Amino acid sequence: MKKVAVIMGSDSDWPVVKGACAQLKEFGIPYEAHILSAHRTPAQAAEFARSARANGFGVMICAAGMAAHLAGAFAGNSTLPVIGIPMKGGAMDGLDALLATVQMPSGIPVATVALNGAKNAAVLAAQILAVADDDLAAKLDAAREKMARQIAEKEAKLQAELDER
Amino acid sequence: MKKVAVIMGSDSDWPVVKGACAQLKEFGIPYEAHILSAHRTPAQAAEFARSARANGFGVMICAAGMAAHLAGAFAGNSTLPVIGIPMKGGAMDGLDALLATVQMPSGIPVATVALNGAKNAAVLAAQILAVADDDLAAKLDAAREKMARQIAEKEAKLQAELDER
Amino acid sequence: MKKVAVIMGSDSDWPVVKGACAQLKEFGIPYEAHILSAHRTPAQAAEFARSARANGFGVMICAAGMAAHLAGAFAGNSTLPVIGIPMKGGAMDGLDALLATVQMPSGIPVATVALNGAKNAAVLAAQILAVADDDLAAKLDAAREKMARQIAEKEAKLQAELDER
Amino acid sequence: MKKVAVIMGSDSDWPVVKGACAQLKEFGIPYEAHILSAHRTPAQAAEFARSARANGFGVMICAAGMAAHLAGAFAGNSTLPVIGIPMKGGAMDGLDALLATVQMPSGIPVATVALNGAKNAAVLAAQILAVADDDLAAKLDAAREKMARQIAEKEAKLQAELDER
Amino acid sequence: MKKVAVIMGSDSDWPVVKGACAQLKEFGIPYEAHILSAHRTPAQAAEFARSARANGFGVMICAAGMAAHLAGAFAGNSTLPVIGIPMKGGAMDGLDALLATVQMPSGIPVATVALNGAKNAAVLAAQILAVADDDLAAKLDAAREKMARQIAEKEAKLQAELDER
Amino acid sequence: MKKVAVIMGSDSDWPVVKGACAQLKEFGIPYEAHILSAHRTPAQAAEFARSARANGFGVMICAAGMAAHLAGAFAGNSTLPVIGIPMKGGAMDGLDALLATVQMPSGIPVATVALNGAKNAAVLAAQILAVADDDLAAKLDAAREKMARQIAEKEAKLQAELDER
Amino acid sequence: MKKVAVIMGSDSDWPVVKGACAQLKEFGIPYEAHILSAHRTPAQAAEFARSARANGFGVMICAAGMAAHLAGAFAGNSTLPVIGIPMKGGAMDGLDALLATVQMPSGIPVATVALNGAKNAAVLAAQILAVADDDLAAKLDAAREKMARQIAEKEAKLQAELDER
Amino acid sequence: MKKVAVIMGSDSDWPVVKGACAQLKEFGIPYEAHILSAHRTPAQAAEFARSARANGFGVMICAAGMAAHLAGAFAGNSTLPVIGIPMKGGAMDGLDALLATVQMPSGIPVATVALNGAKNAAVLAAQILAVADDDLAAKLDAAREKMARQIAEKEAKLQAELDER
Repeated sequence: MKKVAVIMGSDSDWPVVKGACAQLKEFGIPYEAHILSAHRTPAQAAEFARSARANGFGVMICAAGMAAHLAGAFAGNSTLPVIGIPMKGGAMDGLDALLATVQMPSGIPVATVALNGAKNAAVLAAQILAVADDDLAAKLDAAREKMARQIAEKEAKLQAELDER
Repeated sequence: MKKVAVIMGSDSDWPVVKGACAQLKEFGIPYEAHILSAHRTPAQAAEFARSARANGFGVMICAAGMAAHLAGAFAGNSTLPVIGIPMKGGAMDGLDALLATVQMPSGIPVATVALNGAKNAAVLAAQILAVADDDLAAKLDAAREKMARQIAEKEAKLQAELDER
Repeated sequence: MKKVAVIMGSDSDWPVVKGACAQLKEFGIPYEAHILSAHRTPAQAAEFARSARANGFGVMICAAGMAAHLAGAFAGNSTLPVIGIPMKGGAMDGLDALLATVQMPSGIPVATVALNGAKNAAVLAAQILAVADDDLAAKLDAAREKMARQIAEKEAKLQAELDER
Repeated sequence: MKKVAVIMGSDSDWPVVKGACAQLKEFGIPYEAHILSAHRTPAQAAEFARSARANGFGVMICAAGMAAHLAGAFAGNSTLPVIGIPMKGGAMDGLDALLATVQMPSGIPVATVALNGAKNAAVLAAQILAVADDDLAAKLDAAREKMARQIAEKEAKLQAELDER
Repeated sequence: MKKVAVIMGSDSDWPVVKGACAQLKEFGIPYEAHILSAHRTPAQAAEFARSARANGFGVMICAAGMAAHLAGAFAGNSTLPVIGIPMKGGAMDGLDALLATVQMPSGIPVATVALNGAKNAAVLAAQILAVADDDLAAKLDAAREKMARQIAEKEAKLQAELDER
Repeated sequence: MKKVAVIMGSDSDWPVVKGACAQLKEFGIPYEAHILSAHRTPAQAAEFARSARANGFGVMICAAGMAAHLAGAFAGNSTLPVIGIPMKGGAMDGLDALLATVQMPSGIPVATVALNGAKNAAVLAAQILAVADDDLAAKLDAAREKMARQIAEKEAKLQAELDER
Repeated sequence: MKKVAVIMGSDSDWPVVKGACAQLKEFGIPYEAHILSAHRTPAQAAEFARSARANGFGVMICAAGMAAHLAGAFAGNSTLPVIGIPMKGGAMDGLDALLATVQMPSGIPVATVALNGAKNAAVLAAQILAVADDDLAAKLDAAREKMARQIAEKEAKLQAELDER
Repeated sequence: MKKVAVIMGSDSDWPVVKGACAQLKEFGIPYEAHILSAHRTPAQAAEFARSARANGFGVMICAAGMAAHLAGAFAGNSTLPVIGIPMKGGAMDGLDALLATVQMPSGIPVATVALNGAKNAAVLAAQILAVADDDLAAKLDAAREKMARQIAEKEAKLQAELDER
């Protein structure tokens, strides 16, 4: 199976970003996590992106905050699907990172997920790989059913609580 | 090759959305375009999404404005990758549609592109299908090179203009 | 009397949402509270909404945050009045939830109250039921007078404080 | 049947607000439209609201822009359900009117619809009156079915167009 | 000297609003502080405003949060200058209160100060009364000079700190 | 009677600002209008503000857009009441000018009116001068009554229109 | 004298950006203008920035809109001062471009000017070069005096107009 | 070498602003830090700016919050490059300060850095002085390389961590 690259602009993003790694592991998807900065190590970042397809990657996840250029820089150096996680914390609770990630120019998309949406970035990466992988698709369907069961359990618990009153 | 579904919430979105269809056609990717509303035809929309994988679709693109629920509704009814195009025109120049599309809850991602980003939605769909399709990946690389050449031509034209002054 | 349905997208909304239940109870209005997700249990949510009028409900209150689709999904599956409570906590202090709840397309309104406005959702539900129920209308008037008295008491207390200085 | 009051703060709101009147007429709901200003005729506005229930009104719709106080002023002087239409045109494309309408304090709700959402205000008023009026509820269901048919017709037209290409 | 009315919509605003009272006292300006709500005690609020000039008031300061209608309601019921203090705490850190206070329609101004700007509201009230009161104007000039001296003292302290390094 | 200074940062503001002059003239209030820039003629602007009280001014109105510093610069150089008119046209429809005008530091208030609110700035100036001028206060009350009559006339016209249908 | 590089992400930015070139020419500062894209020609953009100091450039001006990464990409590849011009036109009237340009991470500044502020970018570039160039500093002072004279002329014209009334 | 002036509007800005001083010291750049207020000590602020070039300053850094006029006031009184640091803390997490700093009128630029971006203001000042100072340019390049090494070390540490799992 193709690998997923999980890239963060700073090690301070790791507490959020590792949620993506955990989710990928749960789906049995091979991944690598790296710290690479669009501004502080631009040449290495560009080089990683340019050689990613040849190096066996299928999807790249990039997390960055503030003037979040990381996902865009990767998208400009590769035609692999790039998923952007805008990180909260800058001006206006992360709106700066959201707009800097999603408002890409024509021809160079970044698949943007919610602010701090590390888990969803991993699920989206899995959905992308599952387009051509029925086993992974089945795992995704199973995960979805599990989520529905969890809601049902919470609903049951709420009804029990309400009945007791 | 798997098909791409291009869904819009209203026929008024077609002038923008057809840009996605044109781009898919250029890449030789089979697609279907449909008008389905999360609010006005919720049952049909849900049914379409639920059976999409079985019906040969690999990616779904959903365009909607204002309280843009269409992509989220599709994402909630399928584990295929769903690309959301927030449409401009509501309060705050489309910020309502952008936030309503991208801020999805954990477990149900929508791959959001820029406001009115129909072409980029198609490019992203192609990138997703190209993960397991080297011919399509080659087409994407060729398109990227063409874009670079166009920039170079515009740069040359600008230099010519500046030299004449 | 017709019942009020109080729906939340996640059990994490309960600490706020139970304020609506308390207010309904105070007015003696029968209600049911449920956890149903527009994205994680879309079929059950749609089914609940579709059969709500037949099941004796008169008003539905839906609370959700971020890309808050719950109220809209209920409004798309029923012609009962749907009251939306946008929950704080996403990007920009809940502006995402507010816009995703209120900016509904033509023909499918959601009666939106303030961010985290659970009590006001219940008061609005009571006002709706009171249109054809003079006893409930009298209770609403009494509650309003009580609020005015509370302001008057606080004013008296403030004057006492100021006099002591 | 109880009447709907349609109040606007300025005659300049009429081109949008008359859409609410047209929709009420289509449902056969009696209504009155008035110009009353929270700031320029505050006593008359308060008096209208205070006597509205006694005068046979069941719902009040209030449209205002900028620092939109009209709906709030009506809600503070009546326990009838008050629907607020924030009008576009002030700072930030109407966000001022939206926040001034929806962010009401505890105990005094305003049922807020989308910016310029005159038609939806009327549909919501009809939904409120239909809670105790099965004939009106049937009309609402019929209108909803008509909307779904219109979507289906537009979808058919789109498919015809696509087939011709 | 004419009195200043300091009005707040809720006793929860007092910790901020009392800053205005302290400043008025420092200038020796007579004032009254009251709790009056535009929504919960609309008749009393209107009556207070209507009779304020006759009752010896020269300026009215109104503090309110969220859909902050208090200052506007006072301005609509009096031609005395009304100073509005938007209170922080609602959606978007008080932007709702700011827009609801400042964006008044033509003919009915509210003199709006910064979010939570209680002290500045009092200074502005003093400036207004000082237009026809040279003694008060002298006090304002003295207060301004004191502020400049405080800056100079802090500057001196900073230089001392920097020299020690 | 004391004069009102009407200052604008650029002659391009005149089409809006002259509305303030027209309103002052209607009230019979003497005024001077000047172009002075906080950034392009800072020394002249500061000098004007510093000598304004001595030169017979009672209130100063300052209109500026974008990073609107004009009102703040005047307020920092005088203890006369300064009214700020934020001008529309910069980023976010004038929100930049609004925030730059209203968010003044403690001790230096600017009485801010709505975006482009030139007429209201003049009404506020008149209200300030009327605190110690009963004739002017009577004119303000008369103007308010005229506004109410205009609303009543528009209401009558609307009712005539509705009756004809 | 060192040269100024004026870089734009797209030829559609030229109508605004050429205002920077005109201003540089007026000051007699040598410049080059180029079209280079952070996303479409990332390698060329990085190479230009990396060799800029060696190629005789002293300052770089970068103009880009939407997810405006151009200035940041240049700043990440050079230690020359980089001036960013956020271009209007994306979501929220250019706020996306402003935040994407200004909110740079620690260590990699971009000197950001106002939205579409091409002329100011050139003035800032001149101010930077003038730090070590007294002749250029004199030109800047002369330009400033000319601006003050223009204000004075407009003021004189306004007074003439007002006198005629 | 020319000096850098580091100006803050209030001593409460010092905990952030001293980060700029530390960075300047690290580069061996002479600086002075001062507290000067655009509103509380406008004459001293203007005088400082007007005589700065003659007093040996090459760049001025100004930090201010809320209606942040300090940088603009300095820019209006000098043709030296002025760097503005918008301080967080006002309405909307510092967006007020950002817009009040960056949106300067034509002819009077302020080189704006990120919210609270004291370190970047110092780096930008160093970059400006380094245009004509090769030794300082070399220090800047060395600092940049150090940043890249730090990223590489964090990357190595992350890989070690991941390997251990």
